[in-house]
Amino acid sequence: MERLRQQMAFIQEVDKLKKIGRQSYITDGSRKENDAEHSWHLAMMAILLSEYASQKVDVLKVMSMVLIHDIVEIDAGDTYAYDIAGNATKRAREEKAADRLFGLLPADQTAYLRELWEEFEKQETAEAKFARTLDCMQPIMLNAASDGKAWKEHEVKLSQILERNQSTKEGSNTLWEYARENYIEPNIKNGNIRNE
Amino acid sequence: MERLRQQMAFIQEVDKLKKIGRQSYITDGSRKENDAEHSWHLAMMAILLSEYASQKVDVLKVMSMVLIHDIVEIDAGDTYAYDIAGNATKRAREEKAADRLFGLLPADQTAYLRELWEEFEKQETAEAKFARTLDCMQPIMLNAASDGKAWKEHEVKLSQILERNQSTKEGSNTLWEYARENYIEPNIKNGNIRNE
Repeated sequence: MERLRQQMAFIQEVDKLKKIGRQSYITDGSRKENDAEHSWHLAMMAILLSEYASQKVDVLKVMSMVLIHDIVEIDAGDTYAYDIAGNATKRAREEKAADRLFGLLPADQTAYLRELWEEFEKQETAEAKFARTLDCMQPIMLNAASDGKAWKEHEVKLSQILERNQSTKEGSNTLWEYARENYIEPNIKNGNIRNE
Repeated sequence: MERLRQQMAFIQEVDKLKKIGRQSYITDGSRKENDAEHSWHLAMMAILLSEYASQKVDVLKVMSMVLIHDIVEIDAGDTYAYDIAGNATKRAREEKAADRLFGLLPADQTAYLRELWEEFEKQETAEAKFARTLDCMQPIMLNAASDGKAWKEHEVKLSQILERNQSTKEGSNTLWEYARENYIEPNIKNGNIRNE
């Protein structure tokens, strides 16, 4: 039972993802969401939106990828998209976290999750690109639903959003266009996003 | 774009799952978990533990099932396992919730998620049974990790746990035995679970 013991140790350890806070508010604006909730939301999107992926994707792989993509933040913390200093050290912090966390599992599953996470980070495959599109679109949707609360708090500029989302359309041009028209443009008009 | 508009309306609506509280505490005992977090945790277990399923399972199906299995609680609320009155009206409340919530989607996806949810509820297929095993094992793990906090609060008896988990072993005898030995038995010994 040593194998199962290792698996359950990992499953218990990743419970901590429920305490890693993000910057986006849930739709009613009452509080910020956490990484576990965010990951669940992305997996729901993967189930329903894969028809819009630029290239045909393996849905199981996309779902697995989004479910585990933030686990390294248990040790490395969430680095806000527009935090320049934090993003400079992000990669090294996350590599170390991946070693420890995925290393709790039996060797075959350590390798499986590590490779899945690396694939997401490298952004080369269809699944990685589509997962990234969902990961970028979901907070934009939440920010729009909560009357731009996180955008206003951080005084986010349109130029920052566009730079951050340079490659979002690679995973799905349809989803990026939808986000631009329905979530971003109305929030430029009402001033929630700064356009200067 | 009407199809995508319906899909995004559903995806935005199910954000409310993040506000449906459960009775189990997260591992550090600091607060109770919510349905979105719980669903994410079950999907992680599905990725890692399917080798222990009693019958061979389609992992994508199990993952999809656990990700959506509690969505009806957005309207119907979480019914605590040991709430007798609540459980008497649960089915009717959840059917109505399924009509409204899955009904937000385009017809093909309404049918897909509705059938997946019904399959889970009916507990006839290998996937439904294994999903149920995960759904029962996860709060037992959390309760054990948080020193039996939820068990103590509700003064839960061993007989209630055993009755609730009568069919948990059907999805995976290995996982049920593991839970019994590692989570339940130590908490009978230390008095967190009442044995009378």
